[in-house]
Amino acid sequence: MNEFDLINNYFSWQLNDSDIELGVGDDAAIVNLHSDFQLVTSTDTLSEGVHFFDDDLPEDIAYKSLAVNLSDIAAMGATAKWFTLALTLPSLDEVWLKHFSESLKETSQKYSVSLIGGDTTKGTLNISITIMGVVQKRCAIKRSGAKNGDYIYVSGDIGDAAHCLKKIKEGVKPNESELIKLKRPLPRLELGSALKNIASSCIDISDGLEQDLQHIIKASKVGAEIDVYDLPISEELNNYIKTSGNWSLPLCGGDDYELCFTANKEHDSAIKNIAKTHNIRITKIGVISDSKRLEVKGYDGALKSYQHF
Amino acid sequence: MNEFDLINNYFSWQLNDSDIELGVGDDAAIVNLHSDFQLVTSTDTLSEGVHFFDDDLPEDIAYKSLAVNLSDIAAMGATAKWFTLALTLPSLDEVWLKHFSESLKETSQKYSVSLIGGDTTKGTLNISITIMGVVQKRCAIKRSGAKNGDYIYVSGDIGDAAHCLKKIKEGVKPNESELIKLKRPLPRLELGSALKNIASSCIDISDGLEQDLQHIIKASKVGAEIDVYDLPISEELNNYIKTSGNWSLPLCGGDDYELCFTANKEHDSAIKNIAKTHNIRITKIGVISDSKRLEVKGYDGALKSYQHF
Repeated sequence: MNEFDLINNYFSWQLNDSDIELGVGDDAAIVNLHSDFQLVTSTDTLSEGVHFFDDDLPEDIAYKSLAVNLSDIAAMGATAKWFTLALTLPSLDEVWLKHFSESLKETSQKYSVSLIGGDTTKGTLNISITIMGVVQKRCAIKRSGAKNGDYIYVSGDIGDAAHCLKKIKEGVKPNESELIKLKRPLPRLELGSALKNIASSCIDISDGLEQDLQHIIKASKVGAEIDVYDLPISEELNNYIKTSGNWSLPLCGGDDYELCFTANKEHDSAIKNIAKTHNIRITKIGVISDSKRLEVKGYDGALKSYQHF
Repeated sequence: MNEFDLINNYFSWQLNDSDIELGVGDDAAIVNLHSDFQLVTSTDTLSEGVHFFDDDLPEDIAYKSLAVNLSDIAAMGATAKWFTLALTLPSLDEVWLKHFSESLKETSQKYSVSLIGGDTTKGTLNISITIMGVVQKRCAIKRSGAKNGDYIYVSGDIGDAAHCLKKIKEGVKPNESELIKLKRPLPRLELGSALKNIASSCIDISDGLEQDLQHIIKASKVGAEIDVYDLPISEELNNYIKTSGNWSLPLCGGDDYELCFTANKEHDSAIKNIAKTHNIRITKIGVISDSKRLEVKGYDGALKSYQHF
């Protein structure tokens, strides 16, 4: 099997998107963008030893590679449309490839996003996806729009992925629901889309709430006050924190891919309705200030979120 | 220095493209596409030990990473606009990063293409670029349009990159001009653009002429006849072939990034004019047939172009 057989066998499936004129198999893909829409694009890489372990299942790696990219599109309030896959593989392991490609296909179909191109290369396992989405002109939610007095919200629960990773590193076996939080994060596409024209800023929590919220306040030139006792956490994590007093997991733990966003307080009831409509927990965790810094009430530990280097 | 300092220090330079609403530094970039244009996108990865050696200069690696992607846009007849960079690095080597980013910036400015996003990750050195270009609707040159009787052309000289690589592998020091062919391939953007509405099919020669021409004939459901004595080769390579009788370098050698294209023979004089206008050697190397296979006159060796696995 050569590279072209590999692509034909594992990465060329039927797509149902009339905006695609040319998908996998030429020098480049060609797609149509409707007028009044903008292209929204982002790239995320998963590399062995950092984002997954060498014994992780290929189906989980494929899912997460696409999900973390979808999460970036969600954070912009955009609609995911297409992606390219740069796959660096140590060898042609057909069993691995079959599971990887089936999971990628299933995930792409679930989120209505189409694989339109990519590259396969030999080397240490490395998966880089570039995702493309569309959004109505001037409707994308940027990091830079938070205003003094805006409420700060977080979707779902946070800290579970970091808690799970901590257990694995300590040799403690996490339970199935904890593993799902780490390996199968939910991209909040519906929520992101619903927040267009409501949220003043938004980011997905990939590197830890405090670090990602710092990105918002830096880009928006504001400050923020949050309270650890307002953070949405699971019962399991709550039990751990009761015993340990350690709030660093929900504050600084990464890999949750929940959305952290801000909105004028007049939108608070609209946001409660969105939570109800989409059946997503949305929690107010604080308020944007004019202090230019992040103040975390109830926590005096180090703010050390995930560092890539 | 953390990931965000790294991006700020090395990958956030001023862009001069009014179509970019949001570049590096948010969850995703936002760009505008003009109506009547389509988005053309492609991904190419360079990984250590395959596309470059560990002692290659960072400036050469940066140049080539972008050039091979630009070459894909050229092969579609499109105009390159934006790219994202997924950079996996073993460590934060600031000297390496400085040279890499300066060369990337210089190359992007030379070809008027803007870095709008990306990701940095720790791991074995791996550079994956996704390039985005634009083309007037229905004007992109695909692989699938070659027709029986079309002439087959190649730009520039081919085989020099493979010849240079062969010397390196054999411990023979290549001269400066040979190294340039391998490390600084020229993306044929002007040529690709000029071939719109003239070429019936086009591909860039990255994996070897015979293999890439096979992609054209397969996609176009035709055959091809070429003659090795018509292949455009440099004097240096000609001398090597005279001695060795080995035509495999221009036929099957990769990494040249010249364009191989087909056109109805009525366009032959227009193509000669394009060659003159753009000061690019363009050579007719054969004719498209209805045989469904590639016939190579003057060569009875194995057709073994580059295989990634």
